[in-house]
Amino acid sequence: MNEKLLTAISKYAEKVNTALSDICDRYESSPIFTKEMRAVTESVRYSLTAGGKRIRPFLVWCFCKLCNGDENKALVLGCALEMVHTYSLIHDDLPCMDDDDMRRGKPTNHKVFGEATAVLAGDGLLTEAFCVITGSDLSDKAKVDAVKVLAEKAGLLGMIGGQEIDLSSEGKDISLDTLRILQRKKTGMLIEAGCLLGCIASETTDKKAFDCASEFAHAFGLAFQITDDILDVTGTQEELGKNIGSDEKEHKCTFVTHLGLDGAKKEAEKQVNIAKDAISSVFSGEYTELLCDLCDHLLERRN
Amino acid sequence: MNEKLLTAISKYAEKVNTALSDICDRYESSPIFTKEMRAVTESVRYSLTAGGKRIRPFLVWCFCKLCNGDENKALVLGCALEMVHTYSLIHDDLPCMDDDDMRRGKPTNHKVFGEATAVLAGDGLLTEAFCVITGSDLSDKAKVDAVKVLAEKAGLLGMIGGQEIDLSSEGKDISLDTLRILQRKKTGMLIEAGCLLGCIASETTDKKAFDCASEFAHAFGLAFQITDDILDVTGTQEELGKNIGSDEKEHKCTFVTHLGLDGAKKEAEKQVNIAKDAISSVFSGEYTELLCDLCDHLLERRN
Repeated sequence: MNEKLLTAISKYAEKVNTALSDICDRYESSPIFTKEMRAVTESVRYSLTAGGKRIRPFLVWCFCKLCNGDENKALVLGCALEMVHTYSLIHDDLPCMDDDDMRRGKPTNHKVFGEATAVLAGDGLLTEAFCVITGSDLSDKAKVDAVKVLAEKAGLLGMIGGQEIDLSSEGKDISLDTLRILQRKKTGMLIEAGCLLGCIASETTDKKAFDCASEFAHAFGLAFQITDDILDVTGTQEELGKNIGSDEKEHKCTFVTHLGLDGAKKEAEKQVNIAKDAISSVFSGEYTELLCDLCDHLLERRN
Repeated sequence: MNEKLLTAISKYAEKVNTALSDICDRYESSPIFTKEMRAVTESVRYSLTAGGKRIRPFLVWCFCKLCNGDENKALVLGCALEMVHTYSLIHDDLPCMDDDDMRRGKPTNHKVFGEATAVLAGDGLLTEAFCVITGSDLSDKAKVDAVKVLAEKAGLLGMIGGQEIDLSSEGKDISLDTLRILQRKKTGMLIEAGCLLGCIASETTDKKAFDCASEFAHAFGLAFQITDDILDVTGTQEELGKNIGSDEKEHKCTFVTHLGLDGAKKEAEKQVNIAKDAISSVFSGEYTELLCDLCDHLLERRN
């Protein structure tokens, strides 16, 4: 990752981490909090502050800046999005789902807090994400738009639909088309939510910005997933902070099994170029460059 | 239940059932629905159309009518609330939570669709409830208020907090105070959400209406829970459509174990009177009578 992008991502992740930690503090200092609820708020804090690059909030921020918006508004929406992303990871790791023991280099939520509290922590994060939006400084119209985008992209026809396709295709050969739909929903929709939330945070009414956000997100999300599949084959457990080779072990259809390693790399490059073109055809300047660098980084990332 | 109340509840439940069924139809007829997602949308439909008296949407409707609001707006918010209530039942029944096999006289969701899809169906219902609100005809301000009330009451310091208190007190003796807090959060908060959503649907700005809604809901919710505990001892499986005696089997602290059967009945009567006074001191007329009849009914209900 080039120095400028690395600095921008690290600095922004710090801001996100502080804001998320503040959100956790608020629950435990509320007058209606009681000590018997502590397991679920600690479980929420454990997963919400487990780190990660905070790429989704970073996308919210970049798109808000591209549209000349107020970055404080982007931060709040970025936190809401990260809460939804974190809930999806907690539920995805459950024994009845992917049954994963490790996440971001730490034991998964249910390994530490038990399954029941992990289910509740996920439910709580999803629910509270919407409180974070309504509690923000945005206009009522922007709040409604933000709730709508986040709920639609995370909902039955979005991320959850993708997770169901994933479940129903376990142990089956699925076509490349189905795999694309699965990944667009399962990971792409929340990435798209991030880019759209950035536009909403800026309170822009320019339809071109929203169209660009969706087009960029679609290609970026696909490149992200393809490179994820490549890393599952070429990465190490140390680099990724989770078990590797799990796709092959579970006989999962991935972009690598469909296209081969070289074909997958070529497809990732193609999607990266589509994403860069999408953004460069509408915007220019510092944040366009950051986003293009982020796209290029996908092709060389090791975690 | 007196004839008038029975008719009002049955007629309104039919409306709610039709509206919820329409919501389910919308997912499966969407252009971005694919057949691989069918298990989760069927699972959502299974639990959402499993019947029940639809008391929460009925409360939304009554409070909207008390505030002279548009009942179509109440119906939409009632559906959103019922979706959140249904998600909470699906997750509550999971093996890692209460591990229940029967609900509303039918096998529980995970018994039919498996645990993974049941988790996703619950997640989907919770998420889509917020889409239902943003897709309504309410003003932006009312939509924001509705999202805020629903998310807060269902969130970490509300219903989920109550579920965590319930989990953490399993097998332990808890005080009557803790039991009250537990129940206020676990069941009372969604009942309060219903009454408040009715006020919001009417777009009233009268603070008295909101205060009355909270006061009524608190007492009504408590009476509801106390009579639920009584039924777990005195009811039959046929009447309740679920396993009975489960509280005793699991050595759960309930209002009956704390107060005895007679003491619990007296406390229920006391709460019913508080609820009726709360409503009658602010409102009058047809919907006040319906709500008072509903309170009285709690004391004689068999399911």
